[in-house]
Amino acid sequence: MTLAVYLSGEIHTAWRDDVIAGCTGLDVVFSAPVTDHAASDDCGVAILGPEPEKFWHDRKGAQINAIRTRREIERADVVEVRFGDKYKQWNAAFDAGYAAALGKALVILQPPEHDHALKEVDAAALAVARDPAQVADILRYVLTGALPS
Amino acid sequence: MTLAVYLSGEIHTAWRDDVIAGCTGLDVVFSAPVTDHAASDDCGVAILGPEPEKFWHDRKGAQINAIRTRREIERADVVEVRFGDKYKQWNAAFDAGYAAALGKALVILQPPEHDHALKEVDAAALAVARDPAQVADILRYVLTGALPS
Amino acid sequence: MTLAVYLSGEIHTAWRDDVIAGCTGLDVVFSAPVTDHAASDDCGVAILGPEPEKFWHDRKGAQINAIRTRREIERADVVEVRFGDKYKQWNAAFDAGYAAALGKALVILQPPEHDHALKEVDAAALAVARDPAQVADILRYVLTGALPS
Amino acid sequence: MTLAVYLSGEIHTAWRDDVIAGCTGLDVVFSAPVTDHAASDDCGVAILGPEPEKFWHDRKGAQINAIRTRREIERADVVEVRFGDKYKQWNAAFDAGYAAALGKALVILQPPEHDHALKEVDAAALAVARDPAQVADILRYVLTGALPS
Amino acid sequence: MTLAVYLSGEIHTAWRDDVIAGCTGLDVVFSAPVTDHAASDDCGVAILGPEPEKFWHDRKGAQINAIRTRREIERADVVEVRFGDKYKQWNAAFDAGYAAALGKALVILQPPEHDHALKEVDAAALAVARDPAQVADILRYVLTGALPS
Amino acid sequence: MTLAVYLSGEIHTAWRDDVIAGCTGLDVVFSAPVTDHAASDDCGVAILGPEPEKFWHDRKGAQINAIRTRREIERADVVEVRFGDKYKQWNAAFDAGYAAALGKALVILQPPEHDHALKEVDAAALAVARDPAQVADILRYVLTGALPS
Amino acid sequence: MTLAVYLSGEIHTAWRDDVIAGCTGLDVVFSAPVTDHAASDDCGVAILGPEPEKFWHDRKGAQINAIRTRREIERADVVEVRFGDKYKQWNAAFDAGYAAALGKALVILQPPEHDHALKEVDAAALAVARDPAQVADILRYVLTGALPS
Amino acid sequence: MTLAVYLSGEIHTAWRDDVIAGCTGLDVVFSAPVTDHAASDDCGVAILGPEPEKFWHDRKGAQINAIRTRREIERADVVEVRFGDKYKQWNAAFDAGYAAALGKALVILQPPEHDHALKEVDAAALAVARDPAQVADILRYVLTGALPS
Repeated sequence: MTLAVYLSGEIHTAWRDDVIAGCTGLDVVFSAPVTDHAASDDCGVAILGPEPEKFWHDRKGAQINAIRTRREIERADVVEVRFGDKYKQWNAAFDAGYAAALGKALVILQPPEHDHALKEVDAAALAVARDPAQVADILRYVLTGALPS
Repeated sequence: MTLAVYLSGEIHTAWRDDVIAGCTGLDVVFSAPVTDHAASDDCGVAILGPEPEKFWHDRKGAQINAIRTRREIERADVVEVRFGDKYKQWNAAFDAGYAAALGKALVILQPPEHDHALKEVDAAALAVARDPAQVADILRYVLTGALPS
Repeated sequence: MTLAVYLSGEIHTAWRDDVIAGCTGLDVVFSAPVTDHAASDDCGVAILGPEPEKFWHDRKGAQINAIRTRREIERADVVEVRFGDKYKQWNAAFDAGYAAALGKALVILQPPEHDHALKEVDAAALAVARDPAQVADILRYVLTGALPS
Repeated sequence: MTLAVYLSGEIHTAWRDDVIAGCTGLDVVFSAPVTDHAASDDCGVAILGPEPEKFWHDRKGAQINAIRTRREIERADVVEVRFGDKYKQWNAAFDAGYAAALGKALVILQPPEHDHALKEVDAAALAVARDPAQVADILRYVLTGALPS
Repeated sequence: MTLAVYLSGEIHTAWRDDVIAGCTGLDVVFSAPVTDHAASDDCGVAILGPEPEKFWHDRKGAQINAIRTRREIERADVVEVRFGDKYKQWNAAFDAGYAAALGKALVILQPPEHDHALKEVDAAALAVARDPAQVADILRYVLTGALPS
Repeated sequence: MTLAVYLSGEIHTAWRDDVIAGCTGLDVVFSAPVTDHAASDDCGVAILGPEPEKFWHDRKGAQINAIRTRREIERADVVEVRFGDKYKQWNAAFDAGYAAALGKALVILQPPEHDHALKEVDAAALAVARDPAQVADILRYVLTGALPS
Repeated sequence: MTLAVYLSGEIHTAWRDDVIAGCTGLDVVFSAPVTDHAASDDCGVAILGPEPEKFWHDRKGAQINAIRTRREIERADVVEVRFGDKYKQWNAAFDAGYAAALGKALVILQPPEHDHALKEVDAAALAVARDPAQVADILRYVLTGALPS
Repeated sequence: MTLAVYLSGEIHTAWRDDVIAGCTGLDVVFSAPVTDHAASDDCGVAILGPEPEKFWHDRKGAQINAIRTRREIERADVVEVRFGDKYKQWNAAFDAGYAAALGKALVILQPPEHDHALKEVDAAALAVARDPAQVADILRYVLTGALPS
């Protein structure tokens, strides 16, 4: 069994690396959005030309990013969404909703202080983890049946 | 043509009333989540019994609310999501993602200061409005072809 | 909002009547399997002729019952499955799995002594109730936002 | 032709080994739930932390197991469900219903004494076998056209 | 519960009338292909102009008939297919396959002499009846739970 | 049987009126895009505010029109697409492709001089008509079995 | 591009070999039902034990064959159905209907004398061929763009 | 991540080669319709025999081409549609609509003079490019996150 796992959400800490490191030796194929914040913001105008209006500047970029993100979510077996401490993170919650509607296995990684605000998101999830090691432990168990010692 | 319109998102201002008032005479069937904040938070334990852990208190409620919200989104022709000034509003973004994955027509109502943070959500929407009157104008035009005078 | 609710499971107590009575005045359309045990067992051979083998006697009946049950589940907004005290009740669990795969809102009604054995079923449900009044309370809240007083 | 076969149900006898041994040389990819009963029961709390309430202890585990089981059923060409002599086995019937709703080829392995109780499950199946060798014979025939000699 | 029942197949005997008469008082909405053989054969050229080639003459008609038949099958809860004594009746078997792939409840009405030739069709059906009265009895039981006296 | 028919395509002649007039007395519910050319072009900026760039002016309008057109196509039983003598009419061909992918019954209304250019579109259609009366004749036949006298 | 092609229908002549031979060098993966007539008829009872009733004897076999045939049709890009000179061939027409409902590319191979009887089947097909060489030519063209010289 | 990209539309310039050359080193699998205009027009009659009527000559060819084009669109992650300077190009717009209804990521390549006529098509697209190099840049960014320098 190969698991395709999409790592959505926060792009300002190294949590993806921690999940991936924790899954060493497992048959997992990871994917993620473009995590270079500046590139992600500006890809639309960098490729297709400038826009005087910031709204359309953003739109052009967000639509190109959607080519990648929607496709990866559609291909994933597990969609793991990380909510961090900062920013609005509406794109993370959007991805969670998108994945839920497609029937994907949803795993949320969040600090306890967000529990109440994320209750509707969590209600669609199969697991709510507190740190990347738990996410890796879930993937290991799902693939091998082995529990953390 | 009857339009089923689900009004998702912010529950602390009267924007739903404004949209509905603006659609007087149109063949629209509106639906919405339970907008009584306390009832929405506590429905799980009020009906099914108390939980010592806040996490499960929230979970029981959020799951019961999901019976209503998922069904209404699935039935809707248009999902209108309002982002307000306060709170995390991750459930609003989750609904937007859920609706987008189902191919619903998505209309977002948001103040300009959220434009950048909502760019991924907006990129899946067919319209981004600034006030409830615009939402009503869109629905009137979609149903009758009439533009605001 | 009209809710279509399918009442699956146990046919030896009057729980369906209790749920329906508790929903007086609500816009709910209830459906159920044929609850006449003898008719349900023998419908195949009663209509299409006898079978010497009990296995095919059962098969003919179960397939005719499936015309009704699968269609009602597919049409339902909420699938409510009752597990009682007696019998194997595999058809109840089958209905729950069928409903879950179709993305229906699943509500389970079960006594606490079955909690461990039903944990996989419950994990797909949006609510686990203990008595029919709670099921009615859920439906009332979902439709009207009103909590039990 | 490669067949993906999910072996659901009873975890207390070696029937999976028998099916797999009987398919030696065939192009079959087998999958199964985690069959270590203790790990399966406790995976939720072992990974994500303890729960004082047994109900939520079970729920956390069952949801993590669902990451694996639902995905394997969705990927399978054939879902083989074994009903044994003991326990409630509602998860087995749930899997059968889940697979049936997805249009999977369903093969049930059951002793004759369960025939009447399983008639609704069997009515959705393409074969009802009595022992693992028959299951292997079915898979061999489906893949190669060869009948048991 | 209203049942939408599509009556496919043989158009040279009055079996549809018999089924409909047997369902007096039931909440069934029947539909059928155009049963005027000449109109069904010639509708394409009668409406859209003549074709020198018989193959395209037939094609134009069959495609117009498909507007009706595919839509009715897609809308039906039950697809009842009658195989009679004469003709190739490949359109009947085609309808049965079409309905099966859509997950419709399939009821076949056939004389015993066709049993072997129809075994693949029957294997996808929930009932195989011998006369129109049995079909009506099935629909009555499905809707009301009443068995023939 | 009620037929939902969406009349897509050319908006500069009265062909829709002719089809509708030809269907007098039939159980057809017609729908169409907004056929006021100016309103259709400008609805985006008229409702949501002006855009300095013509590209986004068009985009805002086209997206609002899509709320109506996609929904009507999804609801339709028959999608009738008219290609006229003028303009690029790419939106008509787009609608045809959209309808084809959804498995809708597609009827094309086109002059013979477009036959070669429309061959890929026609290849997905169940009928190619030359004038609105033929379209009405098709709908009459589909609903009643009556051919033009 | 690899094409998965399912060769359905007649099992008494060598037409499958002819198609396959004609596709030498092409990237096609062929599949087919079990073409050993006796094995296909008796597989149910040979594996699962005898049935006194011929009807159930046939049913057990047809259901096991369906494990293979339905799966192959669902996996196929092209479903090629051959109608020969003999037998009822309702299973061939059933496969064609099944494939059509799934949106598969359907190619029919039939002698001209069956044209009228097969007009509904042909109306769902993208090609009607007269001999296996034409089928191979179609597959070659679809894969490489090369026409027969 | 491998991206399957279908290059639809204009067949008279070398834009496909330019896109492909611009993607050197990327994990993209390109596909396209048959771009030999004469072969594409005549494949039907060349393989299946002549037709006296041009309409059916075209139909036979267009249907065979549809075996390839529909399948490639269904398999694609990204559908790139090029509108050139000449011809009606309704098949390009049809492909865009077909892809949009399937939820594919749509990228349009068009000169500015077509912007107004293509506004409904563009409204369904995630990017509108002006030259093949931009298309390649989009694919490179989607796959690697790298922007053009």
